[in-house]
Amino acid sequence: MNMKSLTKELWMDIPVRRKIVSIHREVEELVAQSGIKEGICLVNAMHITASVFINDNESGLHQDFDRFLERLAPHAPVSQYAHNGYEDNADAHLKRQLMGREVTIAITEGKMHLGPWEHVFYYEFDGQRKKRVLVKIIGE
Amino acid sequence: MNMKSLTKELWMDIPVRRKIVSIHREVEELVAQSGIKEGICLVNAMHITASVFINDNESGLHQDFDRFLERLAPHAPVSQYAHNGYEDNADAHLKRQLMGREVTIAITEGKMHLGPWEHVFYYEFDGQRKKRVLVKIIGE
Amino acid sequence: MNMKSLTKELWMDIPVRRKIVSIHREVEELVAQSGIKEGICLVNAMHITASVFINDNESGLHQDFDRFLERLAPHAPVSQYAHNGYEDNADAHLKRQLMGREVTIAITEGKMHLGPWEHVFYYEFDGQRKKRVLVKIIGE
Repeated sequence: MNMKSLTKELWMDIPVRRKIVSIHREVEELVAQSGIKEGICLVNAMHITASVFINDNESGLHQDFDRFLERLAPHAPVSQYAHNGYEDNADAHLKRQLMGREVTIAITEGKMHLGPWEHVFYYEFDGQRKKRVLVKIIGE
Repeated sequence: MNMKSLTKELWMDIPVRRKIVSIHREVEELVAQSGIKEGICLVNAMHITASVFINDNESGLHQDFDRFLERLAPHAPVSQYAHNGYEDNADAHLKRQLMGREVTIAITEGKMHLGPWEHVFYYEFDGQRKKRVLVKIIGE
Repeated sequence: MNMKSLTKELWMDIPVRRKIVSIHREVEELVAQSGIKEGICLVNAMHITASVFINDNESGLHQDFDRFLERLAPHAPVSQYAHNGYEDNADAHLKRQLMGREVTIAITEGKMHLGPWEHVFYYEFDGQRKKRVLVKIIGE
């Protein structure tokens, strides 16, 4: 068979500065829609103050992530960052780098090929405006 | 030519909590087995307390990685993490995020296309049980 | 249509120890050259003391990245690292791990499919010698 592809932008609009939001079901449905049986699925934040990552769907851990990132790259005082002349989001750029821009997920027999607890998340680090996540699936 | 693919799960069973283990040769052999000449090879941990990464095959550096990760996301006291109500592995989830879930490796002329010192490793952060690594190769 | 691919190594020679350098235009031109309309583009450092990453093209932020990485994985004193028996670049291996080895970029309608501020960079952590970046494009 020949190569097929599916491309879809998901719109996010998170009403707070920082938040972890599941996009697992949306990606799952796009993989099904694509009709691709063997291939890969790239999911990436299209904005540089957000991440897409795979980890546990457990709220305690999500608090731990937030404290961890605030400890390594604190938001305040905003004046500690050279980037923050006209902005206040330098920490968001650093946090996104620690959590990563993207995940690449194998597709096997028409489904995401994941371990038992792997769950796909969007992590907003500078919210209160519209942003996009890109899903690109290629395969056959 | 048309697209081909190969899918393989590698089983890991690390007898200690944390350890770096080479999976380089296993991935190399799967690329050869696949018969794929031009494509990409995704290698990812299927568990969310482990990483797959590419770095130096040097034992001193591996000690440095461990100290570095323990400094940024210490295991103890386990009570410092909200995730650790029934578990003690929150640090493993954080460490895995710093080291990354996956690598994507180019395949050129039937082989992994790597720099002179690139070596593929599995990093266990919460061992003493069976876990899997996924290798997915697509190309032609 | 059948799968196509393009493979290209970019040579880097950074005259200082650490520096962020744009490789955005080079990758853009290779995507155009490849003639691939739908696919993915892998860009990775071929050396284990350098990163490829996507973030903001803003010099203040680039200073913030450098200070941030120096705070988390300082270069000196070099004796703090077990790796540094014959070398002095253990910190470069750690910094590269935080910033990541690679990015995977979707190609849609013949172009990199990126958000408004996404920009592709090479990050040298142990310069003053020649190194390579790999660009691998597959698709149709």
